[in-house]
Amino acid sequence: MPEGPLILIADPEPRTLAMIFEPEAMARLKQLGTVRVHADGQHLSNQELDAALARAAIVIGQIDLPAERLAGMGKLKAIFNVEGNFLPNIDYGWCFQHGIHVLNTSPVYATSVAETALGMALDLCREITSTHEAFRSKSEKWGLESNGGSFLLTGTKVGIVGLGDLGSALRRMLMPFRCEVRVFDPWLSERRVREQDCIPSDLDDVFRLSRVVFLFASSTSENQGSIGKRELDLMQRGSVLLVMSRAGIIDFESLEASVRSGHVRAGIDVFPVEPLSRDSALRHLEGVILSSHRSGGMPESFLEIGRLVVADSELILRGLPPQACKRAERETVARMRSRPVSKS
Amino acid sequence: MPEGPLILIADPEPRTLAMIFEPEAMARLKQLGTVRVHADGQHLSNQELDAALARAAIVIGQIDLPAERLAGMGKLKAIFNVEGNFLPNIDYGWCFQHGIHVLNTSPVYATSVAETALGMALDLCREITSTHEAFRSKSEKWGLESNGGSFLLTGTKVGIVGLGDLGSALRRMLMPFRCEVRVFDPWLSERRVREQDCIPSDLDDVFRLSRVVFLFASSTSENQGSIGKRELDLMQRGSVLLVMSRAGIIDFESLEASVRSGHVRAGIDVFPVEPLSRDSALRHLEGVILSSHRSGGMPESFLEIGRLVVADSELILRGLPPQACKRAERETVARMRSRPVSKS
Amino acid sequence: MPEGPLILIADPEPRTLAMIFEPEAMARLKQLGTVRVHADGQHLSNQELDAALARAAIVIGQIDLPAERLAGMGKLKAIFNVEGNFLPNIDYGWCFQHGIHVLNTSPVYATSVAETALGMALDLCREITSTHEAFRSKSEKWGLESNGGSFLLTGTKVGIVGLGDLGSALRRMLMPFRCEVRVFDPWLSERRVREQDCIPSDLDDVFRLSRVVFLFASSTSENQGSIGKRELDLMQRGSVLLVMSRAGIIDFESLEASVRSGHVRAGIDVFPVEPLSRDSALRHLEGVILSSHRSGGMPESFLEIGRLVVADSELILRGLPPQACKRAERETVARMRSRPVSKS
Amino acid sequence: MPEGPLILIADPEPRTLAMIFEPEAMARLKQLGTVRVHADGQHLSNQELDAALARAAIVIGQIDLPAERLAGMGKLKAIFNVEGNFLPNIDYGWCFQHGIHVLNTSPVYATSVAETALGMALDLCREITSTHEAFRSKSEKWGLESNGGSFLLTGTKVGIVGLGDLGSALRRMLMPFRCEVRVFDPWLSERRVREQDCIPSDLDDVFRLSRVVFLFASSTSENQGSIGKRELDLMQRGSVLLVMSRAGIIDFESLEASVRSGHVRAGIDVFPVEPLSRDSALRHLEGVILSSHRSGGMPESFLEIGRLVVADSELILRGLPPQACKRAERETVARMRSRPVSKS
Repeated sequence: MPEGPLILIADPEPRTLAMIFEPEAMARLKQLGTVRVHADGQHLSNQELDAALARAAIVIGQIDLPAERLAGMGKLKAIFNVEGNFLPNIDYGWCFQHGIHVLNTSPVYATSVAETALGMALDLCREITSTHEAFRSKSEKWGLESNGGSFLLTGTKVGIVGLGDLGSALRRMLMPFRCEVRVFDPWLSERRVREQDCIPSDLDDVFRLSRVVFLFASSTSENQGSIGKRELDLMQRGSVLLVMSRAGIIDFESLEASVRSGHVRAGIDVFPVEPLSRDSALRHLEGVILSSHRSGGMPESFLEIGRLVVADSELILRGLPPQACKRAERETVARMRSRPVSKS
Repeated sequence: MPEGPLILIADPEPRTLAMIFEPEAMARLKQLGTVRVHADGQHLSNQELDAALARAAIVIGQIDLPAERLAGMGKLKAIFNVEGNFLPNIDYGWCFQHGIHVLNTSPVYATSVAETALGMALDLCREITSTHEAFRSKSEKWGLESNGGSFLLTGTKVGIVGLGDLGSALRRMLMPFRCEVRVFDPWLSERRVREQDCIPSDLDDVFRLSRVVFLFASSTSENQGSIGKRELDLMQRGSVLLVMSRAGIIDFESLEASVRSGHVRAGIDVFPVEPLSRDSALRHLEGVILSSHRSGGMPESFLEIGRLVVADSELILRGLPPQACKRAERETVARMRSRPVSKS
Repeated sequence: MPEGPLILIADPEPRTLAMIFEPEAMARLKQLGTVRVHADGQHLSNQELDAALARAAIVIGQIDLPAERLAGMGKLKAIFNVEGNFLPNIDYGWCFQHGIHVLNTSPVYATSVAETALGMALDLCREITSTHEAFRSKSEKWGLESNGGSFLLTGTKVGIVGLGDLGSALRRMLMPFRCEVRVFDPWLSERRVREQDCIPSDLDDVFRLSRVVFLFASSTSENQGSIGKRELDLMQRGSVLLVMSRAGIIDFESLEASVRSGHVRAGIDVFPVEPLSRDSALRHLEGVILSSHRSGGMPESFLEIGRLVVADSELILRGLPPQACKRAERETVARMRSRPVSKS
Repeated sequence: MPEGPLILIADPEPRTLAMIFEPEAMARLKQLGTVRVHADGQHLSNQELDAALARAAIVIGQIDLPAERLAGMGKLKAIFNVEGNFLPNIDYGWCFQHGIHVLNTSPVYATSVAETALGMALDLCREITSTHEAFRSKSEKWGLESNGGSFLLTGTKVGIVGLGDLGSALRRMLMPFRCEVRVFDPWLSERRVREQDCIPSDLDDVFRLSRVVFLFASSTSENQGSIGKRELDLMQRGSVLLVMSRAGIIDFESLEASVRSGHVRAGIDVFPVEPLSRDSALRHLEGVILSSHRSGGMPESFLEIGRLVVADSELILRGLPPQACKRAERETVARMRSRPVSKS
């Protein structure tokens, strides 16, 4: 006979249990109650699943939870999305009204994405990869002569579009470089921007005044394609752009043209269509570093998912509010436009 | 009739005046006394040069200053080497005995080298350049699958060989990454190492316990080729090595073999012979990023030279000790083994 | 005819409008909609008040808001408590169910309280006030001889009870002192404690292992009088205790006895009964610094209240969630036990 | 038969060996060579002392070393003053000419003095001691009403006179307070001031623009009494002054008058005559915190002396330059005007 609250792991795909729960995290989870698993081929029957849902205090995964189903889940306290986005699988209104936390684990990617973003930025500022490619073709220049197009990141003016978990992690890594940092984030108050030692700015100023711009914005119903030729042309020639998250906010045709003309140099980790077409002209451009949507998806990041779920489950089952995961907010959840990923 | 102390710029090559003195710095220098120039094709006659030396309070450049010449320089207070090394052009013993400061401007390269070192380290940890090369050949993998050999710099154990200006600058840039940092530097007391939040270590422990090792050591009479197959084999497979300064301390054959076998991944900015031979096998290896002795030689770094010279000249001519440049030390100057560079 | 959303300031006492809204903040507030004031002697009639409540999108103040009243407030989005606690004037359940934010501005006191706490801690570690008192009585000792009971804060082991806004602000101010910091906070996950470079501990270890302990805990239904003789006796003789917030969590008789015996030295800003009785023995003890519930109540702190209210009102009226104020949480609001203050 | 280099401890007074060498430091010192002691009543005969001097590589203490004596000390490499000042007991010119390091251990006081300075500054800004004194006389005010003359250190403009070891340590402790910091230090280049995130200023601007001013300057032949009524009047009413080191640079009559009038509040650790006269009016003033030249003289500081001596002795005997202690500089040593202290 199971004891304690029921914790149901249901449809965590594309994550597998092994990917997100290291043994210690799973052991801590099991100390919290009875863990039932409907995943990784270990499927419950419909009847078993219905019974588990009816008793579940915690649901981990992206199982469909429309109002009709939620109405029968009298013990439910929290739902964890472990894919990283707030997807339309849940009736959020019902949850808000009934005090059920809907949480996702997107903060786990922050360190990993920020590291890559900084690495690509340093690479483009200092022309590391392009020099290396010149060695491959025996055409490299040496010393001062090779640095004509390079500039120091230290002391440079930087822009960040989107100062959420990812942008904040990058901001901290920039500290030793003593950059003046402008931020455009329409979902943040100026106070929050200033608290992170940044200057609140509009989008145009971010592009006009920064030599290095990082794009970290979530896709929302409002920002699709909001960065195009006009914004790129505001940058000074030879500037650097990092396209980290989400491809939807930038017009890729304009981006490609701007790189081709030498106006900007770009590091790109996300694309409108993935995998990138074998015929894409981006593959042959100078002034670009290409990355295959891999900045966040480190094994370490996925193991953090389990740790966040356990930390917040412990609090919730002790009658306290969650602290580690990101909460769905009544005001913003409906504006999120991320497609679910089909593959880790 | 010249007024004030005489400041002689003589043989600053390979630096030119325009490269090291921006207008403001030159204007401040001229406020300190009479500036005479023997450089950039603007040559003094032998007689003029002798007269200038006899009256010079400050000499900027690498002109030969043996004891016989120094003996006639009764007003001399300081000599600035603007190439960045303590070369054998000066009778150091004479200077020490007579209280003449011999200074070099090597600290100017610290920020620039550290930035590149961090950029190459992030690149190798996260396989940025190699992924980009895979895009060029249409063979890239996507998402998690592409990260099999990657690891986070954040939280990784790091080693630094040589915690002088360059190593210290890198240490500061590592702060946000919360790495455990071991240092081998036989010229530093343990106190100094600990003050920079590092663990004093011997060379073997640096290699054995670190996943990322940075080489910043000056060439000395004691450390030539001190890093070879034995040390590289102490690293765990898949570790990262940054060869920033000086090529002499590492055996390049061992390095090449270690990279070829996949044991280490390396970022290399300095080579035993420069330019690197067109036939060097390094040009075709996987697991390497090649850089053409360009990490320090940024235009910004060279302009810092002038600023440091001016800052210390101002102090010295006010009767105070210098603070910005590096002083030749009686104990160590004779052990320095850098070859002069022939080209900026 | 009023335009835009209605913002009602009602019963902000003990705060006055002038105390919390500097002109710029009030000007920004007025740009958001129509501001109606029921405070500072500027009272609305019952009928006017009812009409204003019916239309209010934002309520600022501690006016009674039972469910019956809330039921008629169809436009309400947020209620700001500007006194600093979640008081029983509101039907919280109703608000949670209907998606109305209930917010307080307690974060405004964090910097001010933390500064005083650090100042008193340094004072007690280094015996600043007691030495000064010895000067008054012409009995001071000089130099080393005066430092027999003093110890450096730098490098000392520190404990913090309650790592909310106040404790976190103090933690940041401790950074340069390189202390090992233990934290007891039953409402925080271990992750959150570790993220602030602290060691999660139980209450006994905080007292047993720390030489300086800061009390910042809110009064809750669970922690009344939880620190007494037993806990104080766990500290080593000559330790330092800072009683910053709330008096209810410590047994003052035990505290007085412990100070009197020389076992601990204490800085006390809050008392079970305020003002402190003129006859209190605490007034004459050695080893104590007394402070009249004044660490948070700085004019600057009160002006921050208005800035926080404006920042969050701007977000809320743009359809975004608040970020600056503290939100009432379904799980914890019922456990809060602070008495309202009757006087600023 | 003694082995290794001879290390002579001679006249370390007012320090005793037990005060400056903890067992581990003494053990490390003894590993470096033969330690002879002429101190703590353990006196060598004249003949023994002469023999020891003739063979000494290292001298620790303030024994007289005129040129005649130095001329016979053929193995001497370094002299450590363990009292903390460069006193006139040594022929410095002889040492400079012969490459002998003259070192003092004044950096050991930096942390301890900076802590007290910050503690007294917080105390005066926030009126901690004066409120406590009001409790003693049952006249304290409560809450906001008590804070009329208080101001936050956070965000306040601060001035530092003298950015040596002490001033730099204080600067680091100020970091979390986000103050704008002006520095007057005629011995420092502007570069060095800016590197510590301070604004180089003249003395008048430091007083005119800062609300809290710290005095850390050494006594020199140039700055005696350089701060008087004129400078104090430049401060705005209600400002705070910390007199940490050295009393000679400020005119105490002006200081007393300024405090008496309520123009400045002062924390004073050093006095023109020590101990302070029992009749001094300072003992009865409001707006002052008195400290008996005790900010540096902590037992921990004295133990640091031994650690610094050992760290540098290890380097020097390995043929490397010292790093931990402060070196006598040819340019400045003659200008130092500190009286030796007669008592620890």
